[in-house]
Amino acid sequence: MSEAAESITSGLRTLAQFGATPAGIDRRLFSPADYAARELYVAWARADGRTVTQDRAGNVFARRTGRSDQAPIVTGSHLDTVPTGGPYDGAYGAAAGLWALRELDSADVETEFPLEAVAWAGEEGSRFPLGCLGSSAFAGLNDLASIEALRDDDGVSFAEARDGASGLLRGVPLRDDTRAPSAYVELHIEQGPVLEHRGIRLGNVTAIAGQRRYDVEITGESGHAGTVPMALRRDALAAAAEIVLALETEASAHEGVVLTVGRLVVEPNQTNVIPGRVTFRIDARSIDETLLTRVGERVVDHARHVAAKRGVAARIEQIERRAAVAMDPHMREALSEAFAGLGERALDIPSGAGHDAMCVAAVAPVAMIFVPSAAGRSHVGDEYTSPAELDLGVEALARALVAIDRRLAKALPSRS
Amino acid sequence: MSEAAESITSGLRTLAQFGATPAGIDRRLFSPADYAARELYVAWARADGRTVTQDRAGNVFARRTGRSDQAPIVTGSHLDTVPTGGPYDGAYGAAAGLWALRELDSADVETEFPLEAVAWAGEEGSRFPLGCLGSSAFAGLNDLASIEALRDDDGVSFAEARDGASGLLRGVPLRDDTRAPSAYVELHIEQGPVLEHRGIRLGNVTAIAGQRRYDVEITGESGHAGTVPMALRRDALAAAAEIVLALETEASAHEGVVLTVGRLVVEPNQTNVIPGRVTFRIDARSIDETLLTRVGERVVDHARHVAAKRGVAARIEQIERRAAVAMDPHMREALSEAFAGLGERALDIPSGAGHDAMCVAAVAPVAMIFVPSAAGRSHVGDEYTSPAELDLGVEALARALVAIDRRLAKALPSRS
Repeated sequence: MSEAAESITSGLRTLAQFGATPAGIDRRLFSPADYAARELYVAWARADGRTVTQDRAGNVFARRTGRSDQAPIVTGSHLDTVPTGGPYDGAYGAAAGLWALRELDSADVETEFPLEAVAWAGEEGSRFPLGCLGSSAFAGLNDLASIEALRDDDGVSFAEARDGASGLLRGVPLRDDTRAPSAYVELHIEQGPVLEHRGIRLGNVTAIAGQRRYDVEITGESGHAGTVPMALRRDALAAAAEIVLALETEASAHEGVVLTVGRLVVEPNQTNVIPGRVTFRIDARSIDETLLTRVGERVVDHARHVAAKRGVAARIEQIERRAAVAMDPHMREALSEAFAGLGERALDIPSGAGHDAMCVAAVAPVAMIFVPSAAGRSHVGDEYTSPAELDLGVEALARALVAIDRRLAKALPSRS
Repeated sequence: MSEAAESITSGLRTLAQFGATPAGIDRRLFSPADYAARELYVAWARADGRTVTQDRAGNVFARRTGRSDQAPIVTGSHLDTVPTGGPYDGAYGAAAGLWALRELDSADVETEFPLEAVAWAGEEGSRFPLGCLGSSAFAGLNDLASIEALRDDDGVSFAEARDGASGLLRGVPLRDDTRAPSAYVELHIEQGPVLEHRGIRLGNVTAIAGQRRYDVEITGESGHAGTVPMALRRDALAAAAEIVLALETEASAHEGVVLTVGRLVVEPNQTNVIPGRVTFRIDARSIDETLLTRVGERVVDHARHVAAKRGVAARIEQIERRAAVAMDPHMREALSEAFAGLGERALDIPSGAGHDAMCVAAVAPVAMIFVPSAAGRSHVGDEYTSPAELDLGVEALARALVAIDRRLAKALPSRS
């Protein structure tokens, strides 16, 4: 293992201690484990000579000065996890920001723009009911007062948690800088199997998929499993099963669309009772908004058609809608240059998962780099990316930051 | 409403008070409500001049003497209910036994054989883990010692409950008579929609269906709903859905077979996670044992075929097997005569549900009479059979007892 790869691997292993449980890593926002992770992040940054600040949403920034005082080029990801998370989702991109800046130090690379590594607060939405909490506050998509009022399952508000013992870091200055970054680039594990499947080690993300979620309730007629002939049944589960398969077929017919029924509940759920009611959720994603809207209409059609045919009632309601966010074309070109400089082939790949980049895109041009996830495992304790891939990602990120800096610098008015 | 219908309806309404809850009737064995129901049963029987006894399983017998001292012709059903039961399942057939004997009193009908009405204990298996508990003990299918050791969910044993305040009735003599009945006939609501659907008010049961139960576990691969393309998924729910539909098609292809997936659980059951594991139960019933065995093999084939095609693992295990029980042909003929005497058309109908008659069949020839269930509703608070149909059922039962008595008497050696 190269020295760099070893350093990254060992850093991530240390981070993974914070919140370790038998089922995975539980490092929710403003927990003691999350505090410790942020504290370690700060220690690493300061050891590298960075100026560290934090904002009132809990985001932590580590600054490397540039030749100019332009708004910084920012890179990072989040340090929080889902309740049974893995060691790389978020933590890798956050730590990689620091490692990339360190790489530029070693190579004596100066940039025109200041560079900032960031550790975003609460991306997973696992404690307070808002995903991408920190980046959303940073980008002004949610105002701080509304975020401060959010409560966790125990009734503790964001403001109370933030101002408590595991909240804002002691000894780190607060900043009220609201200047939009000049650019943002995020490195993340793919969380899917595509790179591995294609044998390609880097992804240049095209867009973050738009998402629709639907809540479906099928009401048939419950009855005794032994006494109601097949022809007289109105079985809610059989209807739901037919819809599940229709959705699978529908999604498979469109490149770049995924439809998932991840949650399904049968009532009364007894072996000897024909199901009278089934509720389920449909999750639909695509980076193509027009296609997603059309598929969404087909989803509703399928549910209504099956219900009508089987004499059951279907209530279907769209409960969530998130627009697709395209990565910035110029940023993506800068990434391509950086990957080419490494002699590494990259795959243009959509992101099916949401990321902080999605929120930052509201105020800056953004891009994302993916590295492979073994077997696509995600949000589980044994998610895995090899040390060599982790190392490659950091190297690619460092080069991407330089390429972005060069491009943006060219566009600056001449200072002569 | 006729006087008889009014009397039955009002009697059942009074019984329905015992254990009434907003969700239905909760009258589990040896609960205070169950004690009260048995106590009322005894009061009714004694008011009619019956000799009342109980056995150590909690069964209560009300005897009307015959000309001879042969083993009695027995009729009845159970007084216990599921936790959210209705007013007719069991209670109707139990009370109807008393009403039928009263009808014979009014008509001054003597029988050769003694007649006994019985209220079986714990048919539903809702407190102690044994269905048809009382009739099973009566028929010697389970010995008393093993029944006494059964424990409810609170750890209370059958023996403790039986010997407690809501157990055996105070003031009712114990009997240790283990003589098998000469015959047994049970009146019950259909618990299915067939009679209503066919517009026929009486059913002459052909057989009680055999049953197979299977436990199925599908293991696919869990993954992020946004990041795994459709072609790379091994979705356990999609596989289960395909099996559910295959079973529906399979059952519909065979007259008299029902297949039900009543219980299905998805894991991890989160909107944004592709299901990695689905477990479900299959309930298969038919009165044709050969067909049931063949369909059972097809069930296993379907599960294996779908699993292989989709690259998921399927574990399928038969967890229950109950043989079909045919009603006695001579008894069924006696029922036909009785129905004809009423000028009433009857339907030959299988029973998909289990009944005490199934256990008594081990020691005596048995038959069953069904009356309609509105919309086939069963095991719910609003199960319904009209007063006229309830009345007709009692009338049919009274005539059936006489017809059975006449047939059996003819077969007796001449006493001259």
